[in-house]
Amino acid sequence: MADTDAITLYDYWRSSATYRVRIALNLKGLRYTQKAVHLLRDGGEQHGAAYRALNPQASVPTLVHGERVIRQSLAIVEYLDEIAAPSLLPAAPLARARVRELALLIACDVHPLNNLRVARYLEHEFGADASARERWMRHWMAEGFRAFEALLAADGATGRCCHGDAPTLADACLVPQVYNARRFGLDLAPFPTLSRVADHCLTLPAFDAARPENQPDAVA
Amino acid sequence: MADTDAITLYDYWRSSATYRVRIALNLKGLRYTQKAVHLLRDGGEQHGAAYRALNPQASVPTLVHGERVIRQSLAIVEYLDEIAAPSLLPAAPLARARVRELALLIACDVHPLNNLRVARYLEHEFGADASARERWMRHWMAEGFRAFEALLAADGATGRCCHGDAPTLADACLVPQVYNARRFGLDLAPFPTLSRVADHCLTLPAFDAARPENQPDAVA
Repeated sequence: MADTDAITLYDYWRSSATYRVRIALNLKGLRYTQKAVHLLRDGGEQHGAAYRALNPQASVPTLVHGERVIRQSLAIVEYLDEIAAPSLLPAAPLARARVRELALLIACDVHPLNNLRVARYLEHEFGADASARERWMRHWMAEGFRAFEALLAADGATGRCCHGDAPTLADACLVPQVYNARRFGLDLAPFPTLSRVADHCLTLPAFDAARPENQPDAVA
Repeated sequence: MADTDAITLYDYWRSSATYRVRIALNLKGLRYTQKAVHLLRDGGEQHGAAYRALNPQASVPTLVHGERVIRQSLAIVEYLDEIAAPSLLPAAPLARARVRELALLIACDVHPLNNLRVARYLEHEFGADASARERWMRHWMAEGFRAFEALLAADGATGRCCHGDAPTLADACLVPQVYNARRFGLDLAPFPTLSRVADHCLTLPAFDAARPENQPDAVA
């Protein structure tokens, strides 16, 4: 670790982007303080002026490391990867590309469509009721998972984790998305490889401790 | 460059994700062959079996480098960055994090909501007409650009480009998104810093050659 400055994670228990960062911090054994930003209370604490000064997107996560402020979950994980072992990316450029490709498939093509702000727009502008919004969520998760499953199943580099037997950035993105998929009732039967990988990861202490239900701000 | 294997880019002139990769290839002076995947013709060439075997997401870009196949624009750019100079990321971890944060703000929180497949879902499932779909697009671009502008304006590291005076991954994401913003009639007046940066980048040959209208498959 480059220095011993304190790490603070602005967090929300059910935010899957933040869940990725918790996994990475835990895998690296980094100590951090969580500050809960309640996305639903009082119209959303993330919209308050103090938090917006830290994060103009009014989104979680934000990581503060000493004086440094970093937003965007994948930028945070790559940053952590550059300052603390063990690495969550393999060594060779092609293998690194594969791990990033899997991570970005979820971070760019699945998760952004399932965000709270998007669900609200669908409700208010298009009159989408709860059932239509859940259908929307499941649609994009299923589409992304079909490709993710194909990429895992077709590649001999897939191991107990997405890439080999040690967790990478790809697993840190997959596991929170599988949590969301279960939450919104997506049938995972068509995705045996990614389900197996996610279930394996969840047996590891770093992933277990990062589960939404294990966070201090979790609501039963 | 690690080797001299040929590079092929599966491309579509108006795809802003592919536009990012063209910028990166040009900045690095890498020669590449473009294979156009027409996203609109015959229900979309990306859905054909041959292309799906290469890219199960049926999306562009796909980069083939010798025998290696890489999907997801940011994974491709990071890969190119690891095998060929000049780097599109600064050297220090915090600076790298800032560049990735800006890139991901666009790649995760703006662009995915403006995709063709999303516009089609809105049309078919929610009956969103062209004007509602364009309002949707402008909404997410404006929201993302407000945060992007704030991050650029607040940071002394912003130069002629997003980070300093040399182009980075952040510029490779910003410029295509500004192209989309202009295409869909977003007023850029509230975003003077990002507009200035994008306009500066477009004076550089690598960015100019990557413009959608300069691609072989461009339609007037």
